[in-house]
Amino acid sequence: MTSRPVRITVVGGSRCDAETASLAERVGQEIARGGGILISGGLGGVMEAASRGARLAGGVTVGILPGPHADDANEFVKIPIVTDMGQARNVINVLSGNAVIALPGMEGTLSEIATALKSGIPTVALGAWSDVAGVIPATTPEEAVRLAFERARESAK
Amino acid sequence: MTSRPVRITVVGGSRCDAETASLAERVGQEIARGGGILISGGLGGVMEAASRGARLAGGVTVGILPGPHADDANEFVKIPIVTDMGQARNVINVLSGNAVIALPGMEGTLSEIATALKSGIPTVALGAWSDVAGVIPATTPEEAVRLAFERARESAK
Amino acid sequence: MTSRPVRITVVGGSRCDAETASLAERVGQEIARGGGILISGGLGGVMEAASRGARLAGGVTVGILPGPHADDANEFVKIPIVTDMGQARNVINVLSGNAVIALPGMEGTLSEIATALKSGIPTVALGAWSDVAGVIPATTPEEAVRLAFERARESAK
Amino acid sequence: MTSRPVRITVVGGSRCDAETASLAERVGQEIARGGGILISGGLGGVMEAASRGARLAGGVTVGILPGPHADDANEFVKIPIVTDMGQARNVINVLSGNAVIALPGMEGTLSEIATALKSGIPTVALGAWSDVAGVIPATTPEEAVRLAFERARESAK
Repeated sequence: MTSRPVRITVVGGSRCDAETASLAERVGQEIARGGGILISGGLGGVMEAASRGARLAGGVTVGILPGPHADDANEFVKIPIVTDMGQARNVINVLSGNAVIALPGMEGTLSEIATALKSGIPTVALGAWSDVAGVIPATTPEEAVRLAFERARESAK
Repeated sequence: MTSRPVRITVVGGSRCDAETASLAERVGQEIARGGGILISGGLGGVMEAASRGARLAGGVTVGILPGPHADDANEFVKIPIVTDMGQARNVINVLSGNAVIALPGMEGTLSEIATALKSGIPTVALGAWSDVAGVIPATTPEEAVRLAFERARESAK
Repeated sequence: MTSRPVRITVVGGSRCDAETASLAERVGQEIARGGGILISGGLGGVMEAASRGARLAGGVTVGILPGPHADDANEFVKIPIVTDMGQARNVINVLSGNAVIALPGMEGTLSEIATALKSGIPTVALGAWSDVAGVIPATTPEEAVRLAFERARESAK
Repeated sequence: MTSRPVRITVVGGSRCDAETASLAERVGQEIARGGGILISGGLGGVMEAASRGARLAGGVTVGILPGPHADDANEFVKIPIVTDMGQARNVINVLSGNAVIALPGMEGTLSEIATALKSGIPTVALGAWSDVAGVIPATTPEEAVRLAFERARESAK
């Protein structure tokens, strides 16, 4: 078979303001345009906005859910993965990406960034988190996605 | 968005004989032809044969891996999900399907069937396991997939 | 430090009849008398009866819980382990024992037996499951615990 | 039964300098003297030093291991819990404590602090992490353990 599409994991708050949602949607859109698969935690806020951007651009979206029901996924998740593992699903979410893009969020997002860095997965920060040692800062969604694809291909996981 | 594709999880041995591989490949093919997404554990044997059948028929295949490396997935897995959770990934594998089709396997397969039954996920048995209370026996790959789609739609997860 | 106590995992239904509860309680009692640590899923039925037997005999009981709250543990669990991982906690439950004793139960118990067998953990069956290939049948709680300790020490995990 | 002992989870680097090891050992000692159960990730560095302190003071130590082998636990772990779930075991480690004490460490430690804060588990920082919003800073092992017990009893999980 031909090689697999690049998988980019997008993490961020399960609730977010309109500005962050707009950034997330553009991130999702760019991932889809670049031929990548968008992985997220499948719920609301940044996860939903990024999934929306990717789906509307014709992309494939995977949502790795913390609960036992596929229906908890937002409507833009094409493929829900049902873990019923609560916060432990954050680890799967991160490990499944060739790179991670982190948008604003709370402690859950921070734990995902820390897990990614520990695992050596390239992690791009957009709109927050640029003070965490090891993350790659970006200033626009387009730059964030470009950096994520570049690093994902380098790490060639 | 339009409704999601049906997800069918195929479980069975990580090594298998040619006859079982042929059954598994036809199962994967029928799932893809029916517009379903094939979910498996992503490794060899039944998982690889079913994924091969689905991919060659143009379908989407997800492999939920026990280890930390996406490259452990067989070449017919389009979307690897990296859990690094060993046997616990069997639970995710099962919960993520709207229905399960079980082919011959060993204890790992039995644990997946038991998990599916406990979770109320319709479970079709092909070529083995028909003695486990609660499974739905099928005699051909085509019948197994037809039953799986029917039950998946009824349970409307 | 001196060597660790043997850990025996007891699995079985989260509800059970009085006869099975009595068997489970005697199993727990014997494990404690033998200086073993009792591991269970921490909830009701067989888990509670076995934990009761062990605690009343002065033993240490660990309960590996599926939900997010330590208070879900039955009152005879001394050390609750909180997984919030649903059925995936069954895998931890089994892997943490040097041997497993299985009493009557449903699909959850079957999945634990299958997981133990797959992992090469000696598995003694009491009152049910003797038809599963690979389990070691016992006819009394005393025999079950004796066999479990013997095999646990042989496997010397 | 009487009420359960308080469980304090100690997190920190799997390697550490002598000064941090000394702090960790005193933390473990104080937990045991206070009648608490020490929970850790069961490996080296801070985990081993804290477990050593607790065991030498007569306490009970639990080690929640990332791999499939109980023998990976350091020698001061009395009760190894075998998860075979890699980094996801960090979540269990944290959720199983009534309070968390964080010593110096790397990204794994940060992910545990973030998980604790997200779950509302009181988190005391000793020797590092005092800049993370929400943690409770302490300046000595004795103060850290006193604060942890106080907050654990207040949260009365």
